[in-house]
Amino acid sequence: MSFASSPDVVTFGEAMLRLTPPGHRRFEQASALELWVAGAELNVAVALARLGRSAAWVSRLPANALGRRVAGHARASGVDTDGVVWCSDGRLGLMFVEVGSAPRPSATLYDRAGSAFADLDPDEFDWGARLAGAGAFHTSGITPALSDACARATTEALAAARAAGCHTSFDLNFRARLSTADDARGLLESLAPTIDTLIASSGEVEAVFGLGGEPGELAAQLRELLGIERVVVSTRLAAGDHAQRRWSASVDGDASHEADSPAFGTVDPLGGGDAFSAGFLSGLLDGGPARGLEVGGAIAALKQSIPGDFAILEREEVEDLLNGADARTRR
Amino acid sequence: MSFASSPDVVTFGEAMLRLTPPGHRRFEQASALELWVAGAELNVAVALARLGRSAAWVSRLPANALGRRVAGHARASGVDTDGVVWCSDGRLGLMFVEVGSAPRPSATLYDRAGSAFADLDPDEFDWGARLAGAGAFHTSGITPALSDACARATTEALAAARAAGCHTSFDLNFRARLSTADDARGLLESLAPTIDTLIASSGEVEAVFGLGGEPGELAAQLRELLGIERVVVSTRLAAGDHAQRRWSASVDGDASHEADSPAFGTVDPLGGGDAFSAGFLSGLLDGGPARGLEVGGAIAALKQSIPGDFAILEREEVEDLLNGADARTRR
Amino acid sequence: MSFASSPDVVTFGEAMLRLTPPGHRRFEQASALELWVAGAELNVAVALARLGRSAAWVSRLPANALGRRVAGHARASGVDTDGVVWCSDGRLGLMFVEVGSAPRPSATLYDRAGSAFADLDPDEFDWGARLAGAGAFHTSGITPALSDACARATTEALAAARAAGCHTSFDLNFRARLSTADDARGLLESLAPTIDTLIASSGEVEAVFGLGGEPGELAAQLRELLGIERVVVSTRLAAGDHAQRRWSASVDGDASHEADSPAFGTVDPLGGGDAFSAGFLSGLLDGGPARGLEVGGAIAALKQSIPGDFAILEREEVEDLLNGADARTRR
Amino acid sequence: MSFASSPDVVTFGEAMLRLTPPGHRRFEQASALELWVAGAELNVAVALARLGRSAAWVSRLPANALGRRVAGHARASGVDTDGVVWCSDGRLGLMFVEVGSAPRPSATLYDRAGSAFADLDPDEFDWGARLAGAGAFHTSGITPALSDACARATTEALAAARAAGCHTSFDLNFRARLSTADDARGLLESLAPTIDTLIASSGEVEAVFGLGGEPGELAAQLRELLGIERVVVSTRLAAGDHAQRRWSASVDGDASHEADSPAFGTVDPLGGGDAFSAGFLSGLLDGGPARGLEVGGAIAALKQSIPGDFAILEREEVEDLLNGADARTRR
Amino acid sequence: MSFASSPDVVTFGEAMLRLTPPGHRRFEQASALELWVAGAELNVAVALARLGRSAAWVSRLPANALGRRVAGHARASGVDTDGVVWCSDGRLGLMFVEVGSAPRPSATLYDRAGSAFADLDPDEFDWGARLAGAGAFHTSGITPALSDACARATTEALAAARAAGCHTSFDLNFRARLSTADDARGLLESLAPTIDTLIASSGEVEAVFGLGGEPGELAAQLRELLGIERVVVSTRLAAGDHAQRRWSASVDGDASHEADSPAFGTVDPLGGGDAFSAGFLSGLLDGGPARGLEVGGAIAALKQSIPGDFAILEREEVEDLLNGADARTRR
Amino acid sequence: MSFASSPDVVTFGEAMLRLTPPGHRRFEQASALELWVAGAELNVAVALARLGRSAAWVSRLPANALGRRVAGHARASGVDTDGVVWCSDGRLGLMFVEVGSAPRPSATLYDRAGSAFADLDPDEFDWGARLAGAGAFHTSGITPALSDACARATTEALAAARAAGCHTSFDLNFRARLSTADDARGLLESLAPTIDTLIASSGEVEAVFGLGGEPGELAAQLRELLGIERVVVSTRLAAGDHAQRRWSASVDGDASHEADSPAFGTVDPLGGGDAFSAGFLSGLLDGGPARGLEVGGAIAALKQSIPGDFAILEREEVEDLLNGADARTRR
Repeated sequence: MSFASSPDVVTFGEAMLRLTPPGHRRFEQASALELWVAGAELNVAVALARLGRSAAWVSRLPANALGRRVAGHARASGVDTDGVVWCSDGRLGLMFVEVGSAPRPSATLYDRAGSAFADLDPDEFDWGARLAGAGAFHTSGITPALSDACARATTEALAAARAAGCHTSFDLNFRARLSTADDARGLLESLAPTIDTLIASSGEVEAVFGLGGEPGELAAQLRELLGIERVVVSTRLAAGDHAQRRWSASVDGDASHEADSPAFGTVDPLGGGDAFSAGFLSGLLDGGPARGLEVGGAIAALKQSIPGDFAILEREEVEDLLNGADARTRR
Repeated sequence: MSFASSPDVVTFGEAMLRLTPPGHRRFEQASALELWVAGAELNVAVALARLGRSAAWVSRLPANALGRRVAGHARASGVDTDGVVWCSDGRLGLMFVEVGSAPRPSATLYDRAGSAFADLDPDEFDWGARLAGAGAFHTSGITPALSDACARATTEALAAARAAGCHTSFDLNFRARLSTADDARGLLESLAPTIDTLIASSGEVEAVFGLGGEPGELAAQLRELLGIERVVVSTRLAAGDHAQRRWSASVDGDASHEADSPAFGTVDPLGGGDAFSAGFLSGLLDGGPARGLEVGGAIAALKQSIPGDFAILEREEVEDLLNGADARTRR
Repeated sequence: MSFASSPDVVTFGEAMLRLTPPGHRRFEQASALELWVAGAELNVAVALARLGRSAAWVSRLPANALGRRVAGHARASGVDTDGVVWCSDGRLGLMFVEVGSAPRPSATLYDRAGSAFADLDPDEFDWGARLAGAGAFHTSGITPALSDACARATTEALAAARAAGCHTSFDLNFRARLSTADDARGLLESLAPTIDTLIASSGEVEAVFGLGGEPGELAAQLRELLGIERVVVSTRLAAGDHAQRRWSASVDGDASHEADSPAFGTVDPLGGGDAFSAGFLSGLLDGGPARGLEVGGAIAALKQSIPGDFAILEREEVEDLLNGADARTRR
Repeated sequence: MSFASSPDVVTFGEAMLRLTPPGHRRFEQASALELWVAGAELNVAVALARLGRSAAWVSRLPANALGRRVAGHARASGVDTDGVVWCSDGRLGLMFVEVGSAPRPSATLYDRAGSAFADLDPDEFDWGARLAGAGAFHTSGITPALSDACARATTEALAAARAAGCHTSFDLNFRARLSTADDARGLLESLAPTIDTLIASSGEVEAVFGLGGEPGELAAQLRELLGIERVVVSTRLAAGDHAQRRWSASVDGDASHEADSPAFGTVDPLGGGDAFSAGFLSGLLDGGPARGLEVGGAIAALKQSIPGDFAILEREEVEDLLNGADARTRR
Repeated sequence: MSFASSPDVVTFGEAMLRLTPPGHRRFEQASALELWVAGAELNVAVALARLGRSAAWVSRLPANALGRRVAGHARASGVDTDGVVWCSDGRLGLMFVEVGSAPRPSATLYDRAGSAFADLDPDEFDWGARLAGAGAFHTSGITPALSDACARATTEALAAARAAGCHTSFDLNFRARLSTADDARGLLESLAPTIDTLIASSGEVEAVFGLGGEPGELAAQLRELLGIERVVVSTRLAAGDHAQRRWSASVDGDASHEADSPAFGTVDPLGGGDAFSAGFLSGLLDGGPARGLEVGGAIAALKQSIPGDFAILEREEVEDLLNGADARTRR
Repeated sequence: MSFASSPDVVTFGEAMLRLTPPGHRRFEQASALELWVAGAELNVAVALARLGRSAAWVSRLPANALGRRVAGHARASGVDTDGVVWCSDGRLGLMFVEVGSAPRPSATLYDRAGSAFADLDPDEFDWGARLAGAGAFHTSGITPALSDACARATTEALAAARAAGCHTSFDLNFRARLSTADDARGLLESLAPTIDTLIASSGEVEAVFGLGGEPGELAAQLRELLGIERVVVSTRLAAGDHAQRRWSASVDGDASHEADSPAFGTVDPLGGGDAFSAGFLSGLLDGGPARGLEVGGAIAALKQSIPGDFAILEREEVEDLLNGADARTRR
């Protein structure tokens, strides 16, 4: 939990307040809202920190009580926030989330237009300083989709990360409410030369590239299409009445791997994909892509049992799950 | 959401405060109780309003803070409360509900004797004015079971509705704590000539008429027995470990229809039958009884995922479910 | 509580979700936020409805769960929302409020830029229809300060109200975060010919017009300056360690009146001025400006004891306070 | 905390669930209600138990979850409930309470008509057994006002207590919603020969007997009027902006005493008078009426700082207050 | 619910405050903790009281607000606490519990070292007086594992119970955080001559004795090994996606019995084994070991649906479950 | 909010979980407890961070969920926790706090014996590394009172701080539950040669040294007695019914200063003295002791309005209060 000057991983993206009615209530029924902090790249940084990696998050926040709430929550969860740019008059992005229950889907309502992050100036970020000595850089497709300035900052950050010798990873994270599939594809193609590892879900691959198939097939096709060294694709499958499991594949230059996650229920529907990305990256560093798929699947399964977007758990818990520890009561 | 002078549907019945310990607690463990508003016919009006029908609810409430709480909640949910008669000194009916978890059943404790509604004077209701221009009238077996005055008011309301050209529907809603099966049957027989559509669950049909069988068989038998033009019967079946589905049938003069609802879990055990009635009526108006069974099954399934007795949802959500939209997260 | 087609009063303005940490917490300490509905002109409509006036509120809301939450809350509190224009893709304005405790002030953080209301099209409102038969129209300086379109809509609404024979009232409601003092003054001068009654606090009068003095002096000066028939000015004074009272004055063509309100504490700091406006208007209609100051002072004092922005009380409670009823426990 | 077969004091009366919106909310604003247990004579028993007296409470409760909630809460607070008669089909009395804030009074709404207690059969209580070996018996004017059967039971209980050699005390507790002043007076006159100590507030004395004056004067007059050996009268006076103190007097055959309580604020408005009665009785037993007034004033002052109706405190805390311990933080 | 001087059953052991984050939250996410009372032998006493047995609990608590909280909760739940020894300066044991959700296990963190109970003096307990007239005595392996003094007190209590003619039962309750398997085994062997019925789970039998097999086999082996008259062993098996059932066996001198419980989910993971012990003992008294297994299985299944460690239910609910009553809503 | 390697200030001491019943409830009434983090020296670090100083906190925590909760809360509030030593098997100190209301005092119950901090090994702390480049070091009398090892560590830390050129400050913080007055005095005398600034309340000075008088007098006497360069003494005085103010004095080698704080109420009774210490130190660094007393008085006054022990506020809020900004609503 040390905030060294050279973090293992740096992530870049927006974080929002997430407001959720308690106990499966609908917004029209709520007299209070649970307050969480959420944002794909921050979620990844938190999960990496929980797995024992020093993680720093670069972002832009308004210098008011809400922005401080976000940064404090990030620090409490183990993430270095020295890379946050504070602006005096912006607004914080918001996300309103209802947690559903079958057959009612969970529903998210973004209110992030015009946020302090979307209004960033790419020149505010000194990537050279931020990435000096860092081992890896991670961002996702949400970041460049937020504004033209964000797209430019993403491009510059990836280039700087390459220049600094960082491993670069990118989660496709396609959001139809933020961009068209064509724009997302065009953007990814332009960024591809600076990406070492691309991570995507099969649903996103279909939405953006019109491709179908099993995770391994999709990863191989994307790899060819985009010229990215390593592509990881995962999908969620039903595993009983209320349970699911995640089937994932990684395709490298000369090898491909597959893994099946433990079954999981859903206390909170969000943040699972981000936990998978973090777990994959952590496992990759420890033992290569096969280990990455395992760790990613386990931490993502555990994340679904935890309220909020953050994977608030310990590395030992992930290990215990991978080692088949009994999932009832530890005492 | 317009409170026009001629609503699409008028419903008539009592509403209560419903008090429920949070999170599967028992009353002996509760230091606070969730406060909801509940009542079969108000539930139907709310669900119809959510489906886009203008709905008015006729009732009687005490002119105190609790009565205002009920009426405010009804209006917030989209129902016209101009037809509520306010009395200066009555009490509000109460319902204490524990939400169980298998193998512990949910438990309801009525405290509605002597309520402002049960003490109504039938002459307080000007049905001619209330029903002028209305398309449909709905009530249930609970209303006449509350007191002799309530039985007389129900009889008068149904007669007036017929006279006004409204479609009349009646949900059997047999409650053993309010009347005997014989009384319920006698009452229904006397009201039958003024009922266009009777709605019942197979359990109630068995309890009141001693009949058994599939929904379609029961509907046909009841139709013959009572001389009511259209009878709708539904039953709930297990659909996996924790899930159920609703199997329903409608028998008309010359046609019968059946439908199977989507599977559903249970966030809240109450209000599903009322949502089905509302959905059936709405679908009936849109496209006939087959559509009614579909809409009723879908809205009832969604209702079970929503805390409280009201079906707080949008018509679009019902359509999405009927169209097979993915039941995970919309974002 | 009847929503007649010709309401006693129509108000026009934005409403927001107000989010507040519970129990004097700061945003950085909150894991949940209380959710209220707030907006000066809606607050006035609610208070008028509670005093027995039929009140309709004209506004613009996004057609999503948050917009429905606002409209439902307004209806629950007794206000007609038929005049709300629903738009398919806007955002709802938000207000983050910390309730302080001496010596820490309460703090509000607006997040209302770009709201569905601020983006209104003046032509969406059919003022002729909305105001037909209405007795009075009310808005405040917040409304025209939100956008140029809002300023135009305010101008048109006041003109239409005059044409329809409504009494028109305007609360200065100067907000330095929404406009400059010069702009607020210029706007008020242009609207003055269509305003029958102007209501202001002495602090606002000083901020916008640079004038100082007692309420009666300020009202007389403003009346002269602006050529408005009736001007009402109030100010809050300390009345003991934790209590305050409101000193108000009304100056008419040929008469001036003053009143002192009951002492009050502060459970919730917001909505007192709006309650005063509503009380003044209601009392004015009942018995003239002297009665207006009394009723305004009493309802505003009671409002401060009620959480949220709305004056959720009964006309009888205001009367009891004016009649000197004991302020302990009624049983 | 031992439930010996011969308690120091036996009290007799109804207990209710008390439902209160949290945080000064009004019922129309509440989505949950705090659940407390309340009842004048149970409150007295609890306060006596906290002061170290063994106390038993005789009452009648419905044998359902709500009745068990009441009895469990009484036992948790230290009171013997072996004297509760359980009935299979009654309802529990309810009390809805809003906690006000100046200038808004607290408000109570009784819903206790037809309760299991009001419907008691006097022959269900074996007073000989219940009072054998007991030192004192206490009830209040609420009990006989609930029904004719309750009045008969009260008469029988007081007679039996006299016969068993108990000290008998009676709190006037006049409630205009339960009886007329004339009925209350008539009843008290008939019970007076069996009462050793009468306790009343000056407001009640005025309401029932039309008498005015200081506590000592009122006690002396009542004593003469009713022929009761000892009369205790107290009144609450303002002691600063938000604080009050209690001025009490006891008049005996040959002596009169007065005392002034510590100043107190109001976290919860109910139960103060009952705590005073219990404190007076406890102090009376320890050291005579002068001590009784002191202990009564101190425990009643402390009670106002405690949510709910019960005086949940320790005898040592009362002593500390009487000994002038610093009222800030003990650590 | 009568606290007679000769209770049906006396239990002996520690109780703790149990602190749990609400709604599957982790401790790092909690801003408030639910407060429960827990302790194996107190849990057994509560469950016996709910089944209609008079039950007394012997323990040692600190004489402060936390100790009073524990005793009050025990009394509220129907248990006699006269046998509690109060000490002036000890601390209360604590248990921090996170309720998991698959695949995340529930987790308990004990903070009970140095508690008032662990520091007991065996001579403080007058077992002759406590057990006079009692029918049965129960404790578990947790009690002697807490300290040497606790071990001595357990030995003395069992011997005294035997001498007083009580049936003695002992739940193995092996906790690896409190003792080694060898110590637990040695202790049990020394206590065995004073134990009539030993109750254990198959997992504990494996951990302490290294034995495997079905419940009946384990019970028979343990019986032989320890020379205890009756041994009961149970195990929990999966019964669908989220449900479990309990398979139990009792082996007596000349008979063995087996039973399968109803399926159950898990609202709260703790207290099921204690409810089983209580149910077995109650059923044993009513109709022998076969009935004991049935009642134990049913009450343990119901317990899992109830928050906290206590089996807050009615005997009638257990009967209804055994009689196959429908597990949905009772109304 | 940057965690630089050379913090402005380093503090050293224990932190605990603080558990508090909500809303003036007593522990016996609580079904949930608010969870805060508290500890005098951590409180000081937090307040310094909020005033814009980089602050690091050195402590020892158990490596479990509770320890992580504490550290996360510290980081969220702006404090560097790199200096925390994590131990694998200790317990976290706890503090149970009831917030009173006049005349009932707040009450704290420590459960911190045997904590991970009290069990520290002085050699675990590398003071040279921790203090390199730091400007100031702060601890209080609680730290050495916790155990002999803690006393040794405090001695070593102060000596190391002197050696490193840090300004050293020490808050007397006498707790009668942790040590005798004689021990506290002896300890302070032995530490005095390494203390630059001593801070104390007049009540503590009286308890430890038997001295009375005004703050300035006490400071001067202590300075002489202990040979410490600068002594600061403050006391709290009533300032109306419910308000207080803090009167403080600083005596230096050649100068003395006094200041009176703004009046304040009490939302939370704890942490005010720690905020004062932090404010004094911050103001001292900015402008000398006179500024220190002003800033200390203002931040301590604001602290009392904030729930929990931490002074969660912004430097700008302190400045606004010192500049006399209106204490009502900022909008």
